[in-house]
Amino acid sequence: MVVIRRQVRFDEVDAAGLVFFARYAAFAHEAMEAFFDGLEGGYVALITRRRVGLPAVKLESQFHAPLRYGDAFRVEIRVARVGGRSAVFHYRVVREVDEVLAAEMHHTVVTTDLDALRSIEMPADVRAALERG
Amino acid sequence: MVVIRRQVRFDEVDAAGLVFFARYAAFAHEAMEAFFDGLEGGYVALITRRRVGLPAVKLESQFHAPLRYGDAFRVEIRVARVGGRSAVFHYRVVREVDEVLAAEMHHTVVTTDLDALRSIEMPADVRAALERG
Amino acid sequence: MVVIRRQVRFDEVDAAGLVFFARYAAFAHEAMEAFFDGLEGGYVALITRRRVGLPAVKLESQFHAPLRYGDAFRVEIRVARVGGRSAVFHYRVVREVDEVLAAEMHHTVVTTDLDALRSIEMPADVRAALERG
Amino acid sequence: MVVIRRQVRFDEVDAAGLVFFARYAAFAHEAMEAFFDGLEGGYVALITRRRVGLPAVKLESQFHAPLRYGDAFRVEIRVARVGGRSAVFHYRVVREVDEVLAAEMHHTVVTTDLDALRSIEMPADVRAALERG
Repeated sequence: MVVIRRQVRFDEVDAAGLVFFARYAAFAHEAMEAFFDGLEGGYVALITRRRVGLPAVKLESQFHAPLRYGDAFRVEIRVARVGGRSAVFHYRVVREVDEVLAAEMHHTVVTTDLDALRSIEMPADVRAALERG
Repeated sequence: MVVIRRQVRFDEVDAAGLVFFARYAAFAHEAMEAFFDGLEGGYVALITRRRVGLPAVKLESQFHAPLRYGDAFRVEIRVARVGGRSAVFHYRVVREVDEVLAAEMHHTVVTTDLDALRSIEMPADVRAALERG
Repeated sequence: MVVIRRQVRFDEVDAAGLVFFARYAAFAHEAMEAFFDGLEGGYVALITRRRVGLPAVKLESQFHAPLRYGDAFRVEIRVARVGGRSAVFHYRVVREVDEVLAAEMHHTVVTTDLDALRSIEMPADVRAALERG
Repeated sequence: MVVIRRQVRFDEVDAAGLVFFARYAAFAHEAMEAFFDGLEGGYVALITRRRVGLPAVKLESQFHAPLRYGDAFRVEIRVARVGGRSAVFHYRVVREVDEVLAAEMHHTVVTTDLDALRSIEMPADVRAALERG
Protein backbone atom coordinates (compact mmCIF):
# COMPACT_ATOMS: atom_id res chain seq x y z
CA MET A 1 0.00 0.00 0.00
CA VAL A 2 1.11 3.53 -0.82
CA VAL A 3 -0.48 6.56 0.83
CA ILE A 4 -0.60 10.23 -0.15
CA ARG A 5 -1.82 12.96 2.17
CA ARG A 6 -2.96 16.48 1.41
CA GLN A 7 -5.69 19.08 1.90
CA VAL A 8 -8.57 19.98 -0.38
CA ARG A 9 -7.52 23.01 -2.38
CA PHE A 10 -9.46 26.25 -2.84
CA ASP A 11 -10.48 25.41 -6.41
CA GLU A 12 -11.42 21.76 -5.92
CA VAL A 13 -14.92 22.40 -4.63
CA ASP A 14 -18.01 23.05 -6.70
CA ALA A 15 -20.98 25.38 -6.45
CA ALA A 16 -22.47 23.13 -3.75
CA GLY A 17 -19.36 23.75 -1.62
CA LEU A 18 -18.24 20.11 -1.77
CA VAL A 19 -15.34 18.51 -3.60
CA PHE A 20 -16.55 18.03 -7.18
CA PHE A 21 -17.06 14.32 -7.87
CA ALA A 22 -14.73 14.34 -10.88
CA ARG A 23 -11.86 15.38 -8.61
CA TYR A 24 -11.78 12.00 -6.90
CA ALA A 25 -10.46 10.42 -10.09
CA ALA A 26 -7.71 13.04 -10.09
CA PHE A 27 -6.93 12.16 -6.46
CA ALA A 28 -6.68 8.52 -7.52
CA HIS A 29 -4.31 9.45 -10.32
CA GLU A 30 -2.08 11.39 -7.94
CA ALA A 31 -1.87 8.30 -5.72
CA MET A 32 -1.15 6.06 -8.72
CA GLU A 33 1.70 8.34 -9.79
CA ALA A 34 3.12 8.09 -6.26
CA PHE A 35 2.67 4.31 -6.40
CA PHE A 36 5.17 4.16 -9.28
CA ASP A 37 7.79 6.40 -7.68
CA GLY A 38 10.05 3.35 -7.39
CA LEU A 39 10.35 2.96 -11.18
CA GLU A 40 13.40 4.60 -12.70
CA GLY A 41 12.22 8.14 -13.43
CA GLY A 42 8.84 7.28 -11.94
CA TYR A 43 5.55 7.52 -13.75
CA VAL A 44 6.82 10.63 -15.57
CA ALA A 45 9.54 8.73 -17.43
CA LEU A 46 7.11 5.91 -18.16
CA ILE A 47 4.84 8.36 -19.98
CA THR A 48 7.28 10.80 -21.51
CA ARG A 49 10.37 8.71 -22.29
CA ARG A 50 9.12 5.15 -22.59
CA ARG A 51 5.72 6.21 -24.00
CA VAL A 52 3.94 3.58 -21.97
CA GLY A 53 0.73 4.63 -20.30
CA LEU A 54 -1.92 3.12 -18.07
CA PRO A 55 -5.21 4.42 -19.46
CA ALA A 56 -8.29 3.50 -17.48
CA VAL A 57 -10.74 1.07 -19.00
CA LYS A 58 -12.99 1.04 -15.97
CA LEU A 59 -13.51 3.18 -12.89
CA GLU A 60 -16.04 2.30 -10.22
CA SER A 61 -16.52 4.89 -7.50
CA GLN A 62 -18.61 5.03 -4.37
CA PHE A 63 -18.98 8.31 -2.55
CA HIS A 64 -19.75 7.91 1.13
CA ALA A 65 -19.10 11.27 2.76
CA PRO A 66 -18.26 14.72 1.43
CA LEU A 67 -14.98 16.58 1.55
CA ARG A 68 -14.88 20.35 1.84
CA TYR A 69 -12.30 23.09 1.29
CA GLY A 70 -9.35 22.61 3.61
CA ASP A 71 -10.22 19.08 4.71
CA ALA A 72 -7.12 16.98 5.22
CA PHE A 73 -7.44 13.61 3.54
CA ARG A 74 -5.33 10.66 2.55
CA VAL A 75 -5.58 8.35 -0.43
CA GLU A 76 -4.58 4.75 0.17
CA ILE A 77 -3.79 2.80 -2.99
CA ARG A 78 -3.56 -0.98 -3.08
CA VAL A 79 -3.29 -3.43 -5.95
CA ALA A 80 -6.41 -5.58 -6.09
CA ARG A 81 -5.46 -7.71 -9.11
CA VAL A 82 -2.64 -8.09 -11.67
CA GLY A 83 -3.32 -9.63 -15.08
CA GLY A 84 -1.29 -10.01 -18.27
CA ARG A 85 -1.85 -6.51 -19.57
CA SER A 86 -4.12 -5.05 -16.94
CA ALA A 87 -4.29 -4.34 -13.25
CA VAL A 88 -6.92 -3.18 -10.80
CA PHE A 89 -6.12 -0.57 -8.17
CA HIS A 90 -8.25 -0.10 -5.11
CA TYR A 91 -8.35 3.32 -3.45
CA ARG A 92 -9.69 4.49 -0.12
CA VAL A 93 -10.06 8.24 0.34
CA VAL A 94 -10.16 8.95 4.06
CA ARG A 95 -11.16 12.26 5.67
CA GLU A 96 -8.58 12.57 8.40
CA VAL A 97 -10.39 14.73 10.98
CA ASP A 98 -12.74 11.84 11.81
CA GLU A 99 -11.25 8.91 9.85
CA VAL A 100 -14.44 8.65 7.80
CA LEU A 101 -14.20 6.87 4.47
CA ALA A 102 -15.12 9.60 1.99
CA ALA A 103 -14.85 7.54 -1.19
CA GLU A 104 -13.72 4.23 -2.55
CA MET A 105 -12.66 3.43 -6.11
CA HIS A 106 -11.70 0.45 -8.21
CA HIS A 107 -9.66 1.45 -11.24
CA THR A 108 -8.76 -0.94 -14.04
CA VAL A 109 -5.83 0.09 -16.20
CA VAL A 110 -4.21 -1.47 -19.26
CA THR A 111 -0.54 -1.14 -20.15
CA THR A 112 -0.61 0.73 -23.44
CA ASP A 113 1.82 1.86 -26.13
CA LEU A 114 0.94 5.56 -26.20
CA ASP A 115 2.09 6.05 -29.80
CA ALA A 116 0.24 3.10 -31.32
CA LEU A 117 -2.51 3.29 -28.68
CA ARG A 118 -2.49 -0.48 -28.40
CA SER A 119 -2.29 -2.64 -25.30
CA ILE A 120 1.11 -4.22 -24.65
CA GLU A 121 2.57 -6.84 -22.36
CA MET A 122 3.19 -5.34 -18.98
CA PRO A 123 6.80 -4.11 -18.67
CA ALA A 124 8.75 -6.14 -16.08
CA ASP A 125 9.39 -3.27 -13.70
CA VAL A 126 5.74 -2.21 -13.81
CA ARG A 127 4.71 -5.80 -13.03
CA ALA A 128 7.21 -6.03 -10.20
CA ALA A 129 5.88 -2.83 -8.66
CA LEU A 130 2.31 -4.09 -8.95
CA GLU A 131 3.18 -7.46 -7.42
CA ARG A 132 4.88 -5.79 -4.47
CA GLY A 133 1.82 -3.46 -4.33
CA MET B 1 -32.95 11.61 -23.69
CA VAL B 2 -31.06 14.90 -23.66
CA VAL B 3 -27.92 15.43 -25.73
CA ILE B 4 -25.10 17.94 -25.47
CA ARG B 5 -22.48 18.39 -28.15
CA ARG B 6 -19.08 20.04 -28.01
CA GLN B 7 -15.38 19.69 -28.77
CA VAL B 8 -12.57 18.64 -26.47
CA ARG B 9 -10.91 21.79 -25.19
CA PHE B 10 -7.21 22.62 -25.22
CA ASP B 11 -6.80 22.03 -21.49
CA GLU B 12 -8.86 18.84 -21.17
CA VAL B 13 -6.11 16.48 -22.26
CA ASP B 14 -3.35 15.05 -20.10
CA ALA B 15 0.34 14.40 -20.55
CA ALA B 16 -0.50 11.31 -22.63
CA GLY B 17 -2.35 13.53 -25.09
CA LEU B 18 -5.75 11.99 -24.33
CA VAL B 19 -8.73 13.38 -22.48
CA PHE B 20 -7.95 12.89 -18.79
CA PHE B 21 -10.23 10.23 -17.34
CA ALA B 22 -11.52 12.51 -14.61
CA ARG B 23 -12.93 14.83 -17.27
CA TYR B 24 -15.61 12.33 -18.29
CA ALA B 25 -17.37 12.86 -14.97
CA ALA B 26 -17.33 16.59 -15.72
CA PHE B 27 -18.82 15.86 -19.16
CA ALA B 28 -21.54 13.85 -17.42
CA HIS B 29 -22.26 16.73 -15.08
CA GLU B 30 -22.58 19.16 -17.98
CA ALA B 31 -25.14 16.83 -19.54
CA MET B 32 -27.00 16.46 -16.25
CA GLU B 33 -27.21 20.25 -15.88
CA ALA B 34 -28.67 20.43 -19.40
CA PHE B 35 -31.08 17.63 -18.49
CA PHE B 36 -32.65 19.91 -15.85
CA ASP B 37 -32.96 22.99 -18.07
CA GLY B 38 -36.74 22.56 -17.97
CA LEU B 39 -36.91 23.26 -14.20
CA GLU B 40 -37.66 26.86 -13.30
CA GLY B 41 -34.23 28.50 -13.17
CA GLY B 42 -32.68 25.19 -14.19
CA TYR B 43 -30.09 23.30 -12.17
CA VAL B 44 -28.56 26.61 -11.12
CA ALA B 45 -31.64 27.71 -9.15
CA LEU B 46 -31.96 24.22 -7.69
CA ILE B 47 -28.47 24.54 -6.21
CA THR B 48 -28.24 28.22 -5.40
CA ARG B 49 -31.80 29.24 -4.49
CA ARG B 50 -33.51 26.04 -3.41
CA ARG B 51 -30.31 24.56 -1.93
CA VAL B 52 -31.17 21.12 -3.25
CA GLY B 53 -28.35 19.15 -4.81
CA LEU B 54 -27.84 15.82 -6.46
CA PRO B 55 -24.52 14.57 -5.08
CA ALA B 56 -23.26 11.32 -6.56
CA VAL B 57 -23.22 8.24 -4.40
CA LYS B 58 -21.97 5.97 -7.16
CA LEU B 59 -20.31 6.42 -10.55
CA GLU B 60 -19.44 3.48 -12.76
CA SER B 61 -17.48 4.33 -15.89
CA GLN B 62 -16.23 2.29 -18.81
CA PHE B 63 -13.74 3.83 -21.18
CA HIS B 64 -13.82 2.28 -24.64
CA ALA B 65 -11.96 4.65 -26.96
CA PRO B 66 -9.92 7.79 -26.39
CA LEU B 67 -10.82 11.37 -27.15
CA ARG B 68 -8.18 13.88 -28.17
CA TYR B 69 -7.91 17.65 -28.37
CA GLY B 70 -10.46 19.03 -30.81
CA ASP B 71 -12.53 15.85 -31.12
CA ALA B 72 -16.21 16.61 -31.49
CA PHE B 73 -18.29 14.49 -29.16
CA ARG B 74 -21.77 14.28 -27.79
CA VAL B 75 -23.03 13.15 -24.42
CA GLU B 76 -26.39 11.39 -24.38
CA ILE B 77 -28.07 11.29 -20.98
CA ARG B 78 -30.97 9.00 -20.17
CA VAL B 79 -32.68 8.11 -16.90
CA ALA B 80 -32.11 4.46 -16.06
CA ARG B 81 -34.04 4.33 -12.79
CA VAL B 82 -35.99 6.62 -10.45
CA GLY B 83 -36.36 5.78 -6.75
CA GLY B 84 -37.76 7.64 -3.76
CA ARG B 85 -34.73 9.80 -3.11
CA SER B 86 -32.34 8.59 -5.77
CA ALA B 87 -32.03 8.23 -9.51
CA VAL B 88 -29.62 6.60 -11.90
CA PHE B 89 -28.48 8.38 -15.05
CA HIS B 90 -26.95 6.55 -17.96
CA TYR B 91 -24.53 8.40 -20.23
CA ARG B 92 -23.06 7.56 -23.60
CA VAL B 93 -20.12 9.67 -24.75
CA VAL B 94 -19.86 9.35 -28.52
CA ARG B 95 -16.92 10.48 -30.68
CA GLU B 96 -18.68 12.03 -33.62
CA VAL B 97 -16.12 11.63 -36.39
CA ASP B 98 -16.67 7.87 -36.44
CA GLU B 99 -19.65 7.39 -34.08
CA VAL B 100 -17.48 5.31 -31.76
CA LEU B 101 -18.66 4.96 -28.17
CA ALA B 102 -15.83 6.57 -26.20
CA ALA B 103 -17.23 6.03 -22.72
CA GLU B 104 -20.29 4.95 -20.83
CA MET B 105 -21.29 5.87 -17.29
CA HIS B 106 -23.93 5.02 -14.73
CA HIS B 107 -24.35 7.75 -12.15
CA THR B 108 -26.45 7.38 -9.01
CA VAL B 109 -27.50 10.60 -7.35
CA VAL B 110 -29.48 11.34 -4.20
CA THR B 111 -31.67 14.41 -3.70
CA THR B 112 -30.00 16.23 -0.85
CA ASP B 113 -30.61 19.27 1.34
CA LEU B 114 -27.32 21.09 0.76
CA ASP B 115 -27.44 22.95 4.08
CA ALA B 116 -28.20 19.96 6.29
CA LEU B 117 -26.39 17.56 3.92
CA ARG B 118 -29.18 15.03 4.39
CA SER B 119 -31.14 13.15 1.78
CA ILE B 120 -34.65 14.46 1.16
CA GLU B 121 -37.75 13.34 -0.69
CA MET B 122 -37.38 14.14 -4.35
CA PRO B 123 -38.98 17.50 -5.20
CA ALA B 124 -42.00 17.07 -7.48
CA ASP B 125 -40.56 18.96 -10.44
CA VAL B 126 -37.28 17.02 -10.22
CA ARG B 127 -39.26 13.76 -10.19
CA ALA B 128 -41.38 14.85 -13.13
CA ALA B 129 -38.26 15.70 -15.15
CA LEU B 130 -36.72 12.33 -14.30
CA GLU B 131 -39.90 10.45 -15.22
CA ARG B 132 -40.10 12.19 -18.58
CA GLY B 133 -36.31 11.49 -18.87
CA MET C 1 -14.17 41.10 -32.87
CA VAL C 2 -15.25 37.56 -32.06
CA VAL C 3 -17.61 36.77 -29.19
CA ILE C 4 -18.32 33.59 -27.27
CA ARG C 5 -21.22 33.23 -24.86
CA ARG C 6 -21.80 30.70 -22.13
CA GLN C 7 -22.69 30.16 -18.47
CA VAL C 8 -20.40 29.59 -15.51
CA ARG C 9 -20.24 25.87 -14.91
CA PHE C 10 -20.77 24.05 -11.61
CA ASP C 11 -17.07 23.34 -11.12
CA GLU C 12 -15.67 26.73 -12.13
CA VAL C 13 -16.24 28.41 -8.77
CA ASP C 14 -13.96 28.23 -5.76
CA ALA C 15 -14.47 27.90 -2.02
CA ALA C 16 -15.47 31.57 -1.86
CA GLY C 17 -18.34 30.81 -4.26
CA LEU C 18 -16.92 33.00 -7.04
CA VAL C 19 -15.33 32.04 -10.34
CA PHE C 20 -11.73 31.13 -9.52
CA PHE C 21 -9.40 33.81 -10.91
CA ALA C 22 -7.36 31.29 -12.89
CA ARG C 23 -10.47 30.39 -14.90
CA TYR C 24 -10.52 33.75 -16.65
CA ALA C 25 -7.38 32.79 -18.55
CA ALA C 26 -9.19 29.62 -19.64
CA PHE C 27 -12.14 31.75 -20.78
CA ALA C 28 -9.70 33.86 -22.79
CA HIS C 29 -8.26 30.73 -24.38
CA GLU C 30 -11.71 29.50 -25.36
CA ALA C 31 -12.33 32.83 -27.08
CA MET C 32 -8.93 32.71 -28.81
CA GLU C 33 -9.69 29.23 -30.15
CA ALA C 34 -12.99 30.55 -31.52
CA PHE C 35 -11.13 33.51 -33.01
CA PHE C 36 -9.17 31.12 -35.23
CA ASP C 37 -12.17 29.09 -36.40
CA GLY C 38 -11.64 30.51 -39.88
CA LEU C 39 -8.25 28.81 -40.32
CA GLU C 40 -8.38 25.50 -42.13
CA GLY C 41 -9.00 22.98 -39.36
CA GLY C 42 -9.10 25.85 -36.87
CA TYR C 43 -6.82 26.19 -33.89
CA VAL C 44 -6.91 22.41 -33.43
CA ALA C 45 -5.13 21.73 -36.73
CA LEU C 46 -2.68 24.55 -36.02
CA ILE C 47 -1.63 22.79 -32.82
CA THR C 48 -1.94 19.12 -33.71
CA ARG C 49 -1.11 18.97 -37.43
CA ARG C 50 0.99 22.04 -38.11
CA ARG C 51 2.57 22.01 -34.63
CA VAL C 52 2.39 25.77 -34.40
CA GLY C 53 1.26 27.20 -31.10
CA LEU C 54 0.64 30.59 -29.57
CA PRO C 55 2.07 30.35 -26.06
CA ALA C 56 1.52 33.37 -23.85
CA VAL C 57 4.47 35.51 -22.92
CA LYS C 58 2.41 38.01 -21.00
CA LEU C 59 -1.07 38.16 -19.49
CA GLU C 60 -2.38 41.23 -17.74
CA SER C 61 -5.74 40.85 -16.07
CA GLN C 62 -8.02 43.21 -14.20
CA PHE C 63 -10.93 41.81 -12.28
CA HIS C 64 -13.76 44.28 -11.81
CA ALA C 65 -16.80 42.28 -10.71
CA PRO C 66 -17.33 38.66 -9.71
CA LEU C 67 -19.04 35.90 -11.65
CA ARG C 68 -20.96 33.16 -9.87
CA TYR C 69 -22.28 29.72 -10.73
CA GLY C 70 -24.82 29.94 -13.53
CA ASP C 71 -24.03 33.52 -14.55
CA ALA C 72 -24.32 34.02 -18.28
CA PHE C 73 -21.32 35.84 -19.68
CA ARG C 74 -19.69 36.65 -22.97
CA VAL C 75 -16.05 37.02 -23.87
CA GLU C 76 -15.26 39.59 -26.54
CA ILE C 77 -11.87 39.15 -28.17
CA ARG C 78 -10.20 41.85 -30.25
CA VAL C 79 -6.70 42.16 -31.68
CA ALA C 80 -4.87 45.04 -30.03
CA ARG C 81 -1.56 44.74 -31.90
CA VAL C 82 0.13 42.51 -34.52
CA GLY C 83 3.91 42.28 -34.68
CA GLY C 84 6.35 40.09 -36.61
CA ARG C 85 6.10 37.05 -34.40
CA SER C 86 3.75 38.26 -31.71
CA ALA C 87 0.27 39.62 -31.23
CA VAL C 88 -1.72 41.11 -28.38
CA PHE C 89 -5.32 40.12 -27.78
CA HIS C 90 -7.67 42.21 -25.73
CA TYR C 91 -10.57 40.51 -23.96
CA ARG C 92 -13.63 41.86 -22.22
CA VAL C 93 -15.57 39.43 -20.04
CA VAL C 94 -19.09 40.77 -19.62
CA ARG C 95 -21.69 39.54 -17.13
CA GLU C 96 -24.82 39.53 -19.22
CA VAL C 97 -27.55 39.98 -16.60
CA ASP C 98 -26.45 43.58 -16.00
CA GLU C 99 -23.84 44.17 -18.73
CA VAL C 100 -21.19 44.74 -16.07
CA LEU C 101 -17.56 44.31 -17.16
CA ALA C 102 -16.36 41.43 -14.99
CA ALA C 103 -12.78 41.27 -16.23
CA GLU C 104 -10.45 42.59 -18.85
CA MET C 105 -7.28 40.97 -20.15
CA HIS C 106 -4.38 41.75 -22.45
CA HIS C 107 -2.69 38.59 -23.71
CA THR C 108 0.56 38.62 -25.65
CA VAL C 109 1.28 35.48 -27.68
CA VAL C 110 4.22 34.44 -29.84
CA THR C 111 3.96 32.16 -32.86
CA THR C 112 6.01 29.15 -31.86
CA ASP C 113 7.26 25.91 -33.39
CA LEU C 114 5.94 23.47 -30.79
CA ASP C 115 8.56 20.82 -31.53
CA ALA C 116 11.61 23.08 -31.39
CA LEU C 117 9.90 25.45 -28.92
CA ARG C 118 11.30 28.41 -30.80
CA SER C 119 9.52 31.49 -32.06
CA ILE C 120 8.80 31.53 -35.80
CA GLU C 121 7.60 34.00 -38.37
CA MET C 122 3.87 34.27 -38.21
CA PRO C 123 2.18 31.94 -40.73
CA ALA C 124 0.35 33.91 -43.43
CA ASP C 125 -3.13 32.66 -42.56
CA VAL C 126 -2.60 33.40 -38.87
CA ARG C 127 -1.47 36.93 -39.76
CA ALA C 128 -4.42 37.44 -42.06
CA ALA C 129 -6.82 36.36 -39.33
CA LEU C 130 -5.16 38.71 -36.86
CA GLU C 131 -5.24 41.63 -39.29
CA ARG C 132 -8.94 41.11 -39.95
CA GLY C 133 -9.30 40.73 -36.14
CA MET D 1 9.38 34.86 1.61
CA VAL D 2 7.46 31.59 1.61
CA VAL D 3 8.27 28.79 -0.84
CA ILE D 4 6.25 25.81 -2.04
CA ARG D 5 7.76 22.99 -4.07
CA ARG D 6 6.10 20.35 -6.21
CA GLN D 7 6.00 18.65 -9.60
CA VAL D 8 3.78 19.35 -12.57
CA ARG D 9 0.90 16.89 -12.45
CA PHE D 10 -0.33 14.66 -15.26
CA ASP D 11 -3.41 16.79 -15.93
CA GLU D 12 -1.82 20.24 -15.72
CA VAL D 13 -0.50 20.28 -19.27
CA ASP D 14 -2.44 21.22 -22.38
CA ALA D 15 -2.65 19.90 -25.91
CA ALA D 16 0.68 21.56 -26.72
CA GLY D 17 2.32 19.46 -23.99
CA LEU D 18 3.15 22.47 -21.81
CA VAL D 19 1.66 23.63 -18.54
CA PHE D 20 -1.52 25.50 -19.48
CA PHE D 21 -1.05 29.22 -18.83
CA ALA D 22 -4.10 29.43 -16.58
CA ARG D 23 -2.46 26.97 -14.18
CA TYR D 24 0.16 29.49 -13.11
CA ALA D 25 -2.51 31.51 -11.34
CA ALA D 26 -3.50 28.32 -9.51
CA PHE D 27 0.17 27.80 -8.56
CA ALA D 28 0.20 31.36 -7.21
CA HIS D 29 -2.92 30.67 -5.17
CA GLU D 30 -1.37 27.54 -3.67
CA ALA D 31 1.62 29.63 -2.59
CA MET D 32 -0.63 32.33 -1.18
CA GLU D 33 -2.54 29.76 0.88
CA ALA D 34 0.80 28.51 2.24
CA PHE D 35 1.80 32.10 2.96
CA PHE D 36 -1.10 32.38 5.43
CA ASP D 37 -0.42 29.10 7.24
CA GLY D 38 0.57 31.11 10.32
CA LEU D 39 -2.95 32.53 10.79
CA GLU D 40 -5.12 30.60 13.22
CA GLY D 41 -6.76 27.97 11.04
CA GLY D 42 -4.81 29.28 8.07
CA TYR D 43 -6.38 30.57 4.87
CA VAL D 44 -9.10 27.93 5.20
CA ALA D 45 -10.53 29.43 8.40
CA LEU D 46 -10.22 32.92 6.93
CA ILE D 47 -12.49 31.89 4.06
CA THR D 48 -14.84 29.43 5.69
CA ARG D 49 -15.21 30.66 9.28
CA ARG D 50 -14.35 34.35 9.16
CA ARG D 51 -15.76 34.81 5.62
CA VAL D 52 -12.92 37.10 4.69
CA GLY D 53 -11.39 36.57 1.28
CA LEU D 54 -8.64 38.04 -0.83
CA PRO D 55 -10.10 38.23 -4.34
CA ALA D 56 -7.71 39.39 -7.03
CA VAL D 57 -8.27 42.76 -8.60
CA LYS D 58 -5.20 42.54 -10.81
CA LEU D 59 -2.86 39.82 -12.01
CA GLU D 60 0.13 40.55 -14.20
CA SER D 61 2.01 37.52 -15.47
CA GLN D 62 5.12 37.06 -17.57
CA PHE D 63 5.91 33.65 -18.94
CA HIS D 64 9.60 33.13 -19.63
CA ALA D 65 10.13 29.37 -20.05
CA PRO D 66 7.76 26.42 -20.27
CA LEU D 67 7.09 23.73 -17.69
CA ARG D 68 6.25 20.20 -18.73
CA TYR D 69 4.74 17.14 -17.10
CA GLY D 70 6.88 16.01 -14.19
CA ASP D 71 9.01 19.12 -13.96
CA ALA D 72 9.89 19.96 -10.40
CA PHE D 73 9.29 23.62 -9.65
CA ARG D 74 9.05 25.97 -6.72
CA VAL D 75 6.93 29.05 -6.22
CA GLU D 76 8.47 31.85 -4.19
CA ILE D 77 5.98 34.34 -2.79
CA ARG D 78 6.98 37.72 -1.41
CA VAL D 79 4.93 40.75 -0.39
CA ALA D 80 5.64 43.66 -2.70
CA ARG D 81 3.33 46.22 -1.12
CA VAL D 82 0.79 46.50 1.71
CA GLY D 83 -1.96 49.13 1.61
CA GLY D 84 -5.03 49.83 3.73
CA ARG D 85 -7.27 47.22 2.16
CA SER D 86 -5.02 45.77 -0.50
CA ALA D 87 -1.70 44.06 -0.94
CA VAL D 88 0.50 43.04 -3.84
CA PHE D 89 2.18 39.66 -3.92
CA HIS D 90 5.14 38.91 -6.14
CA TYR D 91 5.72 35.34 -7.29
CA ARG D 92 8.65 33.67 -8.99
CA VAL D 93 8.01 30.22 -10.48
CA VAL D 94 11.35 28.48 -10.85
CA ARG D 95 12.02 25.28 -12.81
CA GLU D 96 14.32 23.42 -10.51
CA VAL D 97 16.28 21.23 -12.92
CA ASP D 98 18.10 24.28 -14.33
CA GLU D 99 16.98 27.10 -11.97
CA VAL D 100 15.34 28.87 -14.92
CA LEU D 101 12.66 31.43 -14.08
CA ALA D 102 9.57 29.98 -15.73
CA ALA D 103 7.12 32.73 -14.81
CA GLU D 104 6.71 35.80 -12.70
CA MET D 105 3.48 37.29 -11.38
CA HIS D 106 2.27 40.36 -9.52
CA HIS D 107 -1.06 39.77 -7.83
CA THR D 108 -3.11 42.52 -6.21
CA VAL D 109 -5.70 41.37 -3.70
CA VAL D 110 -8.26 43.23 -1.63
CA THR D 111 -9.50 42.14 1.81
CA THR D 112 -13.16 41.46 1.23
CA ASP D 113 -16.23 40.53 3.25
CA LEU D 114 -17.32 37.45 1.31
CA ASP D 115 -20.97 37.76 2.32
CA ALA D 116 -21.41 41.43 1.49
CA LEU D 117 -18.75 41.27 -1.26
CA ARG D 118 -17.39 44.61 -0.11
CA SER D 119 -13.82 45.59 0.67
CA ILE D 120 -13.00 45.81 4.37
CA GLU D 121 -10.16 47.08 6.52
CA MET D 122 -7.42 44.52 6.61
CA PRO D 123 -7.76 42.24 9.68
CA ALA D 124 -4.85 42.76 12.09
CA ASP D 125 -3.46 39.23 11.79
CA VAL D 126 -3.59 39.38 7.99
CA ARG D 127 -1.74 42.70 8.07
CA ALA D 128 0.85 41.33 10.47
CA ALA D 129 1.48 38.33 8.22
CA LEU D 130 1.84 40.62 5.20
CA GLU D 131 4.23 42.96 7.02
CA ARG D 132 6.43 40.05 8.08
CA GLY D 133 6.09 38.78 4.47
